[in-house]
Amino acid sequence: MSDAPTACVLIIGDEILSGRTQDANLKYFAARFAELGVRLKEARVIPDDADVIVDTLNTMRARYTYVITTGGIGPTHDDITTLCVARAFGRQVIRHEGVVQRMTAYFGDRLNEARLKMAEVPDGPGVSLIESEMTIAPGFRIENVFVLAGVPSIAHAMFESLAPQLKGGAPMLSGNIGAGVREGDIATGLAAIQKKYPSVAIGSYPSMRDGGFHTSIVARGTDRALIDKALEEVATLMRAQGGDPRSDA
Amino acid sequence: MSDAPTACVLIIGDEILSGRTQDANLKYFAARFAELGVRLKEARVIPDDADVIVDTLNTMRARYTYVITTGGIGPTHDDITTLCVARAFGRQVIRHEGVVQRMTAYFGDRLNEARLKMAEVPDGPGVSLIESEMTIAPGFRIENVFVLAGVPSIAHAMFESLAPQLKGGAPMLSGNIGAGVREGDIATGLAAIQKKYPSVAIGSYPSMRDGGFHTSIVARGTDRALIDKALEEVATLMRAQGGDPRSDA
Repeated sequence: MSDAPTACVLIIGDEILSGRTQDANLKYFAARFAELGVRLKEARVIPDDADVIVDTLNTMRARYTYVITTGGIGPTHDDITTLCVARAFGRQVIRHEGVVQRMTAYFGDRLNEARLKMAEVPDGPGVSLIESEMTIAPGFRIENVFVLAGVPSIAHAMFESLAPQLKGGAPMLSGNIGAGVREGDIATGLAAIQKKYPSVAIGSYPSMRDGGFHTSIVARGTDRALIDKALEEVATLMRAQGGDPRSDA
Repeated sequence: MSDAPTACVLIIGDEILSGRTQDANLKYFAARFAELGVRLKEARVIPDDADVIVDTLNTMRARYTYVITTGGIGPTHDDITTLCVARAFGRQVIRHEGVVQRMTAYFGDRLNEARLKMAEVPDGPGVSLIESEMTIAPGFRIENVFVLAGVPSIAHAMFESLAPQLKGGAPMLSGNIGAGVREGDIATGLAAIQKKYPSVAIGSYPSMRDGGFHTSIVARGTDRALIDKALEEVATLMRAQGGDPRSDA
């Protein structure tokens, strides 16, 4: 598992850190990365602050195989992501001719300087557009950094558009099982199962369901047979505590 | 604004990075920090990996006034936050006598080694419990780091329990206004308003509503009168584009 490609998600936007907006992209990207065999190692939420964006990008793009950013590529003054990505790579921004042409056709005399900002990409090699049917303004890729919109429907569409470019390792598979037991009652047995299956990552997630205690166990790894065997042992453990284990989400 | 206390939220948990679980704590904390006059500068989602947790904690607690962590303080093998926090501070963990006593009273002969892990806190000075009515197991504070549960109802209750300990600056106030206009049509005017009110942070958030384009403008700052004045100018701008601006969320 350790030689699989890695990724980091950078969520850029004051609106997340102010509590105005609930992020609705990370969970989507995370699930897709798992399917694609890319290990999502970290996510960061950072403000619309140029120095912070540039510094964070330069740290992340050196550390991970892929970096995905969301937010800040619109037409308004607070959309500074493209400029910051270019700065992080020591590049200038230029207007992409093809994007200018289709924006001219689409907006006509409503095309203005603000909108033309959405045609900007970093200059130089290793840059390509990330298209989506959701919007006329594209995202873009520069080397290992993928720059997407923040609006979830657009961000998800752009992710699907770039996904074929990602080189994944073995897909991360998972299985789960849950029962009305308290995790403190199965914790010791669970630790023994984790020790027996070191290549399967076993997580325990307690919650309240129908007014009673519930524990969901998630097993993740690249070997379906091992996941299933580990979960069978978890089921036995749960039954010993009076639980009625079932696959659950 | 720049001398206000700052904060970072560390969300610890493989379940967020695997796409299994939607984080439901950051938005709550972010909104409360704004009310309390603490500037939330960053949030990070990191895996259940001891070295990553320790390194990240040590970076964050040196950089920000307050660090809030969520997740990883339960009884199972994947709950390693308390140990990692202690390690970050170069401390041992000890069992808190008062917590052991009440857990003994509550669990009786179901108290076991796994559950006793939830009575552990770092040894030494500057450590205090973070109680909540939601659970018998507490969180804890060590110096400027607050360690909370991950389950949202418990995390929120623990936040309210620690909130009186935070020294805030001027509360971050906000106002908003939205209309059925495209942000590209108001972007130039909006930039001029932002320039005129440098102490008010103006954000623009496009969306689709009722099948048409909608733009929400959020103005944030510590001076209510300036926020209102800036938003009045935004309303004028929206009306000039045929919009019918109203306060919106």
